[in-house]
Amino acid sequence: MPRETLVDSRQEILRTAARLFQQRGYDATSMNDVAAALKLSKGGLYHHFQSKDEILFEIMNHAMEITEERVLAPARAIADPETRLRALIRLHIEVVLSPRDREITVMLHENHPLPPTLRKRINTRKKEYIHFVENLMAEVQRTRQAKGAVSPRAAAFALLGMINWIYQWYKPEGSLQAHNLVPQFTEMVFRGILG
Amino acid sequence: MPRETLVDSRQEILRTAARLFQQRGYDATSMNDVAAALKLSKGGLYHHFQSKDEILFEIMNHAMEITEERVLAPARAIADPETRLRALIRLHIEVVLSPRDREITVMLHENHPLPPTLRKRINTRKKEYIHFVENLMAEVQRTRQAKGAVSPRAAAFALLGMINWIYQWYKPEGSLQAHNLVPQFTEMVFRGILG
Repeated sequence: MPRETLVDSRQEILRTAARLFQQRGYDATSMNDVAAALKLSKGGLYHHFQSKDEILFEIMNHAMEITEERVLAPARAIADPETRLRALIRLHIEVVLSPRDREITVMLHENHPLPPTLRKRINTRKKEYIHFVENLMAEVQRTRQAKGAVSPRAAAFALLGMINWIYQWYKPEGSLQAHNLVPQFTEMVFRGILG
Repeated sequence: MPRETLVDSRQEILRTAARLFQQRGYDATSMNDVAAALKLSKGGLYHHFQSKDEILFEIMNHAMEITEERVLAPARAIADPETRLRALIRLHIEVVLSPRDREITVMLHENHPLPPTLRKRINTRKKEYIHFVENLMAEVQRTRQAKGAVSPRAAAFALLGMINWIYQWYKPEGSLQAHNLVPQFTEMVFRGILG
């Protein structure tokens, strides 16, 4: 049985590549490095992905899938706007703090310029998420008859910044963990956009 | 007169290098590229900086200098905690939105791994800033006798996330600009941490 069959999925390649990109930097990691880490031949790797840019794109795409499945879909299923916003904040923070998801989602912060067509596809998915959050902010503000000193758009970007920035300061041994971070960020956002 | 003397400062090199790193990615930009963009010989460039890592470090260091000069120093000079926090939010957003400062400060988001000693020096400066913001949050909460549902630390990270994330969505032609963003983010933070 050739060694290649032991690599059971494209996801395993994406996960290993993501780990290498984070450790060494995207440009400093070669397709050879990725193949070697997976104990694949270079040909075996190219059988799955034609280029390093394709791997980066697929990692980012997978990161958006994770966000859509774990955050957007469960939030969409909740009818009440306030409960929906609370769930979205909690679920998004949990994805960002999950060691397994984080390996993939942190790559959304990679600023290596992707080819325009690929970059566009990622940006379209990101925009859908932002619009969902923006509309949700507007709904919550309407329900609570907020005076509108903070626009839904500014509120959405503020929330995404708060959550997406976590990877910069979070430490597994630190005092801020999901159990105390979720209620504090939720409190800040609700107080911030209402009144 | 040799061409080299026309490059009048290390800052000019840092600015040009920062621009190239943003356009092409850090690893994809060579010392040759930087020298060529400045119409310097490679030797001329190496006369100023021994390596690309040293250039990246000096760009990040300069970014922290800008933040300290334009945000920290003026904020420190303000006695009243609330006025100080308002000033800090406004000044920090202005630095992030300033086209000239942004070229440099955006490089703080570069995740290429610097050698440990250099990374430590940048992280020390970043931590000083975070502690300043954290202490300021605590002071404002004390002055206003806030109930403390949001800790100064969580509030500081939330604010830094809101502001440092701006570079991800900001568009010079967009509807959110300094004049409406500053009051909205200020409002969100004050409502968020008080009450």
